[in-house]
Amino acid sequence: MNIINNKLGLLTDMYQLSMMEAYFKENRHNTPAAFDYFFRKLPFKGGYVIFSGLSELLENLNQIKFDESDIDYLHKLKSSSDFLEYLKGFSFKGNIYSVDEGTIVFPNEPVVVVEGNLAEVQLIETYLLNTLNFNSLISTKASRIRLVAQDKILSDFGLRRAQGLGGIQASKAAIIGGFDSTSNVLAAKLFDLNAVGTMAHSFVQSYDDELTSFRRFGNTHPENGVLVIDTYSTLQSGLLNAITVAKEMERRGHRLKGIRLDSGDLAYLAKAARKKLDEENLNYVKIIVSNQLDEIVIKSLLEQEAPIDIFGVGTNLVTGNPDAALDGVFKLSMFNNKPRLKVSENIKKVTLPGLKKIIRYKDDDGYYQADAVALTEEEVVEKIFHPFEKEKSKSLKNLKGEVITIPVVKDGEIKITLGSPQSIRKKVKENLLNLPAEYKRFEYPHIYKVGISEKLMKLRDELKTNFTSNKNG
Amino acid sequence: MNIINNKLGLLTDMYQLSMMEAYFKENRHNTPAAFDYFFRKLPFKGGYVIFSGLSELLENLNQIKFDESDIDYLHKLKSSSDFLEYLKGFSFKGNIYSVDEGTIVFPNEPVVVVEGNLAEVQLIETYLLNTLNFNSLISTKASRIRLVAQDKILSDFGLRRAQGLGGIQASKAAIIGGFDSTSNVLAAKLFDLNAVGTMAHSFVQSYDDELTSFRRFGNTHPENGVLVIDTYSTLQSGLLNAITVAKEMERRGHRLKGIRLDSGDLAYLAKAARKKLDEENLNYVKIIVSNQLDEIVIKSLLEQEAPIDIFGVGTNLVTGNPDAALDGVFKLSMFNNKPRLKVSENIKKVTLPGLKKIIRYKDDDGYYQADAVALTEEEVVEKIFHPFEKEKSKSLKNLKGEVITIPVVKDGEIKITLGSPQSIRKKVKENLLNLPAEYKRFEYPHIYKVGISEKLMKLRDELKTNFTSNKNG
Repeated sequence: MNIINNKLGLLTDMYQLSMMEAYFKENRHNTPAAFDYFFRKLPFKGGYVIFSGLSELLENLNQIKFDESDIDYLHKLKSSSDFLEYLKGFSFKGNIYSVDEGTIVFPNEPVVVVEGNLAEVQLIETYLLNTLNFNSLISTKASRIRLVAQDKILSDFGLRRAQGLGGIQASKAAIIGGFDSTSNVLAAKLFDLNAVGTMAHSFVQSYDDELTSFRRFGNTHPENGVLVIDTYSTLQSGLLNAITVAKEMERRGHRLKGIRLDSGDLAYLAKAARKKLDEENLNYVKIIVSNQLDEIVIKSLLEQEAPIDIFGVGTNLVTGNPDAALDGVFKLSMFNNKPRLKVSENIKKVTLPGLKKIIRYKDDDGYYQADAVALTEEEVVEKIFHPFEKEKSKSLKNLKGEVITIPVVKDGEIKITLGSPQSIRKKVKENLLNLPAEYKRFEYPHIYKVGISEKLMKLRDELKTNFTSNKNG
Repeated sequence: MNIINNKLGLLTDMYQLSMMEAYFKENRHNTPAAFDYFFRKLPFKGGYVIFSGLSELLENLNQIKFDESDIDYLHKLKSSSDFLEYLKGFSFKGNIYSVDEGTIVFPNEPVVVVEGNLAEVQLIETYLLNTLNFNSLISTKASRIRLVAQDKILSDFGLRRAQGLGGIQASKAAIIGGFDSTSNVLAAKLFDLNAVGTMAHSFVQSYDDELTSFRRFGNTHPENGVLVIDTYSTLQSGLLNAITVAKEMERRGHRLKGIRLDSGDLAYLAKAARKKLDEENLNYVKIIVSNQLDEIVIKSLLEQEAPIDIFGVGTNLVTGNPDAALDGVFKLSMFNNKPRLKVSENIKKVTLPGLKKIIRYKDDDGYYQADAVALTEEEVVEKIFHPFEKEKSKSLKNLKGEVITIPVVKDGEIKITLGSPQSIRKKVKENLLNLPAEYKRFEYPHIYKVGISEKLMKLRDELKTNFTSNKNG
């Protein structure tokens, strides 16, 4: 579904249109080409990335076109009329190969390969990068929080501090990464997420006293009411009033769902509140905490054995703080049916030529051991080589390989069933179970091995040599 | 204009709707209330914030309503039918007072005041915070980059790494903060921004050799073509081929606009390229640089006297990296025509009660000297007090005060002319000229004085005392 009120053809960088026009003028726009989407650096000093955003990209592929007002706008920017005629009829008719959404992925592997004519593949670059980079960043952040939070309930409270409308996407990506629910009602409606809410300080303030405000909220929310107890004094006022109201509700056959702590030392306050609640036989009343949480704070709270049931995570979740972006790029790998290379003085920036796939290798217990990046036509890969340091290789003997890059779009048509955020979340969970613990370690995780096949290495070397001899020739 | 394909009533936190329903059930939803929007912490270790996002908020106020599918959704979430009937007819009919968009603002001052019935003011909180926090963050970041870049041309290249759809808003906010142009075509169309583009490495790679690719691009872009020269080797290949093509273009009466450097040591490469271009009498060919730029890198490049004409800034601009969010909040200040306070054990979290305005004080040369936060009815403020440390005060004698909080919405109707990004950008520039240099200093800027009037201080003390004596009484 297109979240925005415009076709998406213009949601691109100006240079894509400039290049398309140049291709069009030279009649090269229909020449076949392929690009790889991959990233180079793991965010959050972590050991993996959760690949997310694919369903959004695919659902919107048929929105990547131009309506009349878009064409008029480009006319004002002096695009030529024959090119504009071409754009009027534009729609993406290429092929996309991708790993499943929710799959764990690693640097330097072609997570998505887009194949089509040069013009269409170039045009979609910006939207593809924007969507996959951001969704994957947030799903990865959410999964890190999920790992430290274990089986506690996690709620996204981030919309008010999200980066504008990106907040709508962030809520979905958070669920995919392992969150249980969101405060963002629109995202919940659009993506069928679990919407939850508590109560704000302003509600308490709007009454002459806290006790009355709690009573009133309890009246209108007999089953799912959560009282925020730090408006005045958490332990001397809020907690006591919440207990009074919880007992009054009990007498009416109702149940207070929980109390929320939003300031102060959350570990200390949660322990004090739990103790008091239990003394009052209110052991069913849950403790919810919020206030600048992230995976580091949650880890610390749980290490201190703070009796917290639900964590509400905001800014740091929906913005991926402290990492602003996943550094995914989109690089030409094939042109006119021949492999292409971006040579660079920096070996790490030399791209991998040709149409490629990812093969994931597992041990007998199903644990992921290594990924091979191989040419599509390769059947068997026995050994992988470090992408930048040839002398390092790893044998794949005794491991079972599975191709994880699958065709998802053929001639512009979606060929897979797009999963719901809930189903993708399940896939993430399964993937994480199969990833050995050392790659999930919170600090200094082990580096997962991604290597290239011998054939691919040779192809790259060959193209590099050709290029150098041409240049010097 | 509503950028998204849904009414905006649901673009809120679930708890706003839970609280509204509780107010509605008790027939308090029509009770008058007022909330202040303010932030506590300056981003980027800077000295000021550029207030941005107001026009977006106001243009969308009339979109904050619920269509049938929204009501159906809330019905599924078990909202009661009488409350849903009320929501069907909902629209914002309150008043908004705000400083002008593009004004420089500081921590702890009520930049925006929203007055209306409790339900409507509560509902719009989330969208207001989301919009103002993000736009102000990015405009502030852009203005910091503008300050260091002086009169160089600044282009936003961030869409591909922006936080999803927030990238559309970021491009506009960047222009407001002082950028000249953007690569984001959709934002350029929607907000009438200057769209620009260069050329990508893939264009070069798609040809058998770099020289041919440059020739072809020059042919189709005889006036505004920019060649990216680092696909193979910046100085040994790209620069030389660009010079060849520039001279060929000259012979046809055309002009190459520029070359782009996207990797390597930009200061060194820019100097080498400028020297060579000038030797070849191509002094009109501009040098454009990109690659992970931010205000720190740009400052360093200019200190090294790198002869760069245009900076293309991406990720760090559109995400506000390293700060993910402005910490703006929205706090109840009036209820049922009486001032309200949020008491807290932390004095910095005690809110300012009552309907307030900001008065900006200037010296005879028009330089900003201090801001007073005063009650709306106050005519003259002679002295301001530090908001948290009473013993600190500042006399306002000999300074000229101007109320900068103005009515912008009355009974739901916009009462001002909303400026274009270009006109707001001008306002930002004027504001920055009037801000003394020590507050604009790149590192450790001086702290601008924002104080509260004596009357406001007394009102706060009084409410605090009442609250404490009630609690102990």
